[in-house]
Amino acid sequence: MDLKPFIAQAKIDLAALVAIDTVSAHGRNLEVGASFVTKLLEAEGFVIKSYPGKVAPILVAEAGEGTRTMLIYNHYDVQPESPLELWHSAPFILTEREDAAGVLRWYARGVSDDKGEFISRLAGLRALKAQHGGTLPLKIKWLLEGEEEIGSPSLEKFVHDHASELTADGCWWEFGSIDPAGRPVIYAGLKGIVCLELRAKVADSDLHSSLGAVVDNPIYKLAKAIASMRDETGRITINGFYDSVRPASSTDLEYISRIPDESAALQQAYGIKGFLENASGARYYERLNLEPVLNVNGLHGGYGDAGSKTVLPAEAFAKLDFRLVPDQNPSEIVKLIRAHLTQHNLSDVEVIELETHEMPGRSNLDHPFMKTAIDTARKVYGHEPVVHPSSGGSGPMHPFVEFVGVPVVAAGIGNISGFVHAPNENIVVAHFEKGVEYALELFSSVAKM
Amino acid sequence: MDLKPFIAQAKIDLAALVAIDTVSAHGRNLEVGASFVTKLLEAEGFVIKSYPGKVAPILVAEAGEGTRTMLIYNHYDVQPESPLELWHSAPFILTEREDAAGVLRWYARGVSDDKGEFISRLAGLRALKAQHGGTLPLKIKWLLEGEEEIGSPSLEKFVHDHASELTADGCWWEFGSIDPAGRPVIYAGLKGIVCLELRAKVADSDLHSSLGAVVDNPIYKLAKAIASMRDETGRITINGFYDSVRPASSTDLEYISRIPDESAALQQAYGIKGFLENASGARYYERLNLEPVLNVNGLHGGYGDAGSKTVLPAEAFAKLDFRLVPDQNPSEIVKLIRAHLTQHNLSDVEVIELETHEMPGRSNLDHPFMKTAIDTARKVYGHEPVVHPSSGGSGPMHPFVEFVGVPVVAAGIGNISGFVHAPNENIVVAHFEKGVEYALELFSSVAKM
Repeated sequence: MDLKPFIAQAKIDLAALVAIDTVSAHGRNLEVGASFVTKLLEAEGFVIKSYPGKVAPILVAEAGEGTRTMLIYNHYDVQPESPLELWHSAPFILTEREDAAGVLRWYARGVSDDKGEFISRLAGLRALKAQHGGTLPLKIKWLLEGEEEIGSPSLEKFVHDHASELTADGCWWEFGSIDPAGRPVIYAGLKGIVCLELRAKVADSDLHSSLGAVVDNPIYKLAKAIASMRDETGRITINGFYDSVRPASSTDLEYISRIPDESAALQQAYGIKGFLENASGARYYERLNLEPVLNVNGLHGGYGDAGSKTVLPAEAFAKLDFRLVPDQNPSEIVKLIRAHLTQHNLSDVEVIELETHEMPGRSNLDHPFMKTAIDTARKVYGHEPVVHPSSGGSGPMHPFVEFVGVPVVAAGIGNISGFVHAPNENIVVAHFEKGVEYALELFSSVAKM
Repeated sequence: MDLKPFIAQAKIDLAALVAIDTVSAHGRNLEVGASFVTKLLEAEGFVIKSYPGKVAPILVAEAGEGTRTMLIYNHYDVQPESPLELWHSAPFILTEREDAAGVLRWYARGVSDDKGEFISRLAGLRALKAQHGGTLPLKIKWLLEGEEEIGSPSLEKFVHDHASELTADGCWWEFGSIDPAGRPVIYAGLKGIVCLELRAKVADSDLHSSLGAVVDNPIYKLAKAIASMRDETGRITINGFYDSVRPASSTDLEYISRIPDESAALQQAYGIKGFLENASGARYYERLNLEPVLNVNGLHGGYGDAGSKTVLPAEAFAKLDFRLVPDQNPSEIVKLIRAHLTQHNLSDVEVIELETHEMPGRSNLDHPFMKTAIDTARKVYGHEPVVHPSSGGSGPMHPFVEFVGVPVVAAGIGNISGFVHAPNENIVVAHFEKGVEYALELFSSVAKM
């Protein structure tokens, strides 16, 4: 089938969609964006319900017939465009240009994350309809939210409450990418996350450091807390922390053993001094995909300028995030952290839960839908897909997996130089075109599943 | 003896001396200050030698006859006057006014630290000469430097090289104070200090925190380093750290047991949450005066604004000071710290020695000179002196104690609300007057020792 006309129309639609600056962090144009998405889907015969979210509507669109049902999750909001001065073209105008290597790209905020993903899938769906005389040979349930870039504050509860309306044979997640070798990179899970601030205070004002002989030090308290929570391999030493970790399946480990080892390339790109446990290959990806992590995002207290200042700071704070894996629960983890601090005589270290709070979610790669998504990718891209049982990152996949009970696969059109969340966000035009084809083939394959 | 005329002249001299803004940190007017001090001392018959220091001359003045010799250490430089807007009168104009409680005070930069100390002693010496028909009944060696406020970078070596010229029966240190109850507060030692920066770096640029699964965290490394160096009581857990600590003498412990317990007042004044080991009384002062300390002055790395940011920072640094006691040596301590880091698998944590680097010094309170200084204080002030075997602070006392071999006592005219190093530095006029009397009596007593 000639996809060119569908791709041409998709480019126009994508240009129109990125022109609407749906920045959820600033509450900008979210209703306008939702309305345009609604019109695009209504034009394809979707029946759409709009539900109020915290700052933007959640749209649930339904269309099609058949024995199989596919759920798709996308979002129409984007990250803020700042810093504006680093953009080489206006962030909300779709701009086509070749990069330094002569690769044709489209640039705009949201062109990758997540408007390009949505539009490429829509174009594939239009091609599918054209193949089937204007009808859809499977049922599609399309959920789009406008709060993904602010942590999806409404989604977990929404999916929980609407689980019975969202049942499907499989769910297509909002993102995915093509690696530099042209291989599709597919994820079957996302880690959970809980962000905390630890605060220690020893006095109402800074003291002369000679008083450190008798007054405790808030940075020492935080250092003790942090150092006691993990060991030098990165393993977390909080009592009970691993109790609810689901063991990796043999399928997960098999897929992990096949991931091309890109640790050396990452090490060079970022000047990384070394990896924990000197991990590489399967062990590296086992850590990245399947193991929980304690990160210290920042710690600040006391003097920080040149030279020395003999001060005993009154207070200090640290920001931590814990990446979690199934079946860990952020609220339970926070309880374990508080218990740990008490056990270590640090109950005076204040624990503040920050907003970011997501449950982990991971799908079974043996499920026929997951196999179909992987097989279709192999066929469309002509390369063996790189399958990660889970991303190292976090996102709101959990309620789909756990409440709806649907397997979720992430496959898409992103690229490693896509500058997602940064200036000059882009996609490779050829990846977009392949994405339309992948959508068409995935819909067709699932319809026949 | 009527000291009024001596005090009146001293006020004039002090006003003239504070008018010279000898800010060593800025290299301001140090030669002018040295020259005026020289003139004041020459007028009393001193023979003065001037030696070049790093930025200001070191003056050694000698006068007098007799079997006993007293060495005096003062400095003619001052701290910067900023922030100017917080001063209630011009910092370099001696200004007399009553405080809110009706206590008459003199305000100016250096009026306490250390020009008021120097001039009160000079006035006592003039009174002594008047009592003895214009002669001095003891030999006085007066060493004044102009680099004390920048850490006395020339002094240790100078005193080492000139030790034989500086021999004396006792040395009177540059400071001391009168407590709110009117008791003279006397110190027989100062701690040493070594300031370090610890730096940890894991990559050339910040990373997404999901990579914390495979890349170590620089804040964790610093936390582990700091947490491993002390325990929760503040005791330092670096191998060999206490090996060269000189045991407290029974005299030291006896004096410490008699120090009025002001820990509760300090706790209230600064809103201190509690003391290490819940120390109070003798244990509190034993810690403060006689035990080495690890202070964390600051630690900075990664995200520090509101909310959360899932970043893995590339690097972080911490500033530490170690307060040392006799006979610990800063250079040896740095070696132990480096060895400790290696033992704890943290040899990739960089150790940078900062400029502040002073040896500890403490005198034997059983020495007749020390007893004379304490007895004279009891007589002049009409209160039992509060004697600290050492201050919790640091200063360049070490070369006098160790190279010259002279006992050193710190007694003077400061007060707890004196705002030394801060805007509105001041002394209580009555303390200055009593200081002139104390100088006269101390000189007389030492002459008869």
